[in-house]
Amino acid sequence: MDEHQLITMLRPLAAPEADNFSNDAAALTIPDKQELVVTTDTLIAGVHFIGDEPPALIAQKALRVNLSDLAAMSATPYRYNLALSLPKGTDAAWCERFVAGLAEDQTRYDISLLGGDTTTTSGPLTITITAMGLAQSGVILTRTGAQEGDNIYVTGTLGDAALGLMVAQGELPENTSLLNRYHLPQPRLEALHLLQKYAAAAMDISDGLAQDLNKLCAASNVGAVITETLIPSSRGLTAESERSEDPRDDMVLNAALYGGDDYELLFTASAEHQSAITEAAQNLSFLITKIGTITAKSGGIMLQQSDATIPLKSDGYMHKW
Amino acid sequence: MDEHQLITMLRPLAAPEADNFSNDAAALTIPDKQELVVTTDTLIAGVHFIGDEPPALIAQKALRVNLSDLAAMSATPYRYNLALSLPKGTDAAWCERFVAGLAEDQTRYDISLLGGDTTTTSGPLTITITAMGLAQSGVILTRTGAQEGDNIYVTGTLGDAALGLMVAQGELPENTSLLNRYHLPQPRLEALHLLQKYAAAAMDISDGLAQDLNKLCAASNVGAVITETLIPSSRGLTAESERSEDPRDDMVLNAALYGGDDYELLFTASAEHQSAITEAAQNLSFLITKIGTITAKSGGIMLQQSDATIPLKSDGYMHKW
Repeated sequence: MDEHQLITMLRPLAAPEADNFSNDAAALTIPDKQELVVTTDTLIAGVHFIGDEPPALIAQKALRVNLSDLAAMSATPYRYNLALSLPKGTDAAWCERFVAGLAEDQTRYDISLLGGDTTTTSGPLTITITAMGLAQSGVILTRTGAQEGDNIYVTGTLGDAALGLMVAQGELPENTSLLNRYHLPQPRLEALHLLQKYAAAAMDISDGLAQDLNKLCAASNVGAVITETLIPSSRGLTAESERSEDPRDDMVLNAALYGGDDYELLFTASAEHQSAITEAAQNLSFLITKIGTITAKSGGIMLQQSDATIPLKSDGYMHKW
Repeated sequence: MDEHQLITMLRPLAAPEADNFSNDAAALTIPDKQELVVTTDTLIAGVHFIGDEPPALIAQKALRVNLSDLAAMSATPYRYNLALSLPKGTDAAWCERFVAGLAEDQTRYDISLLGGDTTTTSGPLTITITAMGLAQSGVILTRTGAQEGDNIYVTGTLGDAALGLMVAQGELPENTSLLNRYHLPQPRLEALHLLQKYAAAAMDISDGLAQDLNKLCAASNVGAVITETLIPSSRGLTAESERSEDPRDDMVLNAALYGGDDYELLFTASAEHQSAITEAAQNLSFLITKIGTITAKSGGIMLQQSDATIPLKSDGYMHKW
């Protein structure tokens, strides 16, 4: 298979202004009073995914981790550029399934392909996506808006993806629900309206709640206290934890606090919006859970356990060279 | 070295709206009546560069191949996202020199870093840059505007980079001028004004004149005839070719026609602009050379040699898996 064939496969994904990928670049018109929110994430086989997953899932994970960043900024998906570095020996069948995965998610998230690059690599499969979203000028969420007294919320359930990776690696028994959470993030775009209306600060949780809460608090120059028993875990997680004596055993809690790849949203909102948020959350297909409160910076980042309140260390995934 | 240190090094490069890379994404405001021109190119050690080059040169090549695409669309550099996948063992000194190379080119081309991602790879050093440029709505150049009777022009000299690679690989004697052309493309942004005023179609030459002229003609649905003796070669090339008996020997001609990495511009313009282009070209620091004429599609893509006119095959670099 050559570059020409691959580009031919990708052509049905092209955004209108991509002109069938016939130019060196593509020109994008941004609607009036909107800003373009831009984010880039790279996924590498053996680091961010295993490598033997179905190609459609790999493609979708690569796109969705970027869409999760757009959701965190309260931007609507618009266009993306794809840089695909394929190892020698990648065949057309694999590429077709990869492209089919993208096509499905383009429809699901109303986004289309603006351009990109396809290359051969002697290394592992590497996918870099730059996603572009639209947001009304002035309503963009950042990590810097959290204020003392704000409630702290998370979407969905935490730790599932980290346990899903353990399932994939044979360290835990088969569990499709956890495995799916590892393979296929669900960017929480459904929460955009709620976020735009009520949130003060937001980010997505990709490196574990502990590290990401520390980042959000550092950006906002505040502290936080979260309550261990409030951290939401999925049924998949609960089933897993029930096998041990303590239903909130270390593995489950560690996954929720320090496991990566959840791609849930972490956000804060003024306490006055608490009941409005609870009500708006009823209409979503996933949980919105209050897990704690923003405090003064001097309070530090704390985890309230049943018998003590301890500092929540900023551990979690970090690339090292 | 870890991710945190690397991001600290990159922070001085941050665009104002990047907010010191403290958010999941960055929000870009596009000035009124401008379009955002977006392009993505990946460079991989062992494919697009050798790997033992000075890190500053690698960084600059990665940025400049993208700026060359912006130039081809007649867009002014504005922002870029950087996805940097570093092999294990990459040290801080290497990264500092890489970042210094970017810093220098940010000043040279008036562009700044909007965001990106840093990752560890088990494979070769891989750099994906998504460059964003600005262009007045309606003046964007594409490959589709060439018309029968247009003159065909190229900037600079062709084939130097391919011969430079042969120097780097020890297949040709030391030659700093050729080597530099391979290591460090010169995006022809200086020609933007001329292009915007006179050009009908444009693209950059990254895969060799033969393949890229074929692409431009296919996009515009036209044919072309170019004259072998008009193809501009640098002093470096000439010196090389003088060593053989025929001053236009096969190696030199092949490099100009089929060698990649030149990053010169190929453009067409109506014959009525010929003298205006010649005059405007006087003010540039590089050549603008008329090498042929656009013909009807039925004429094919032809190369006029001293004794015959032959079809110009669409050979050149293509990724294969």
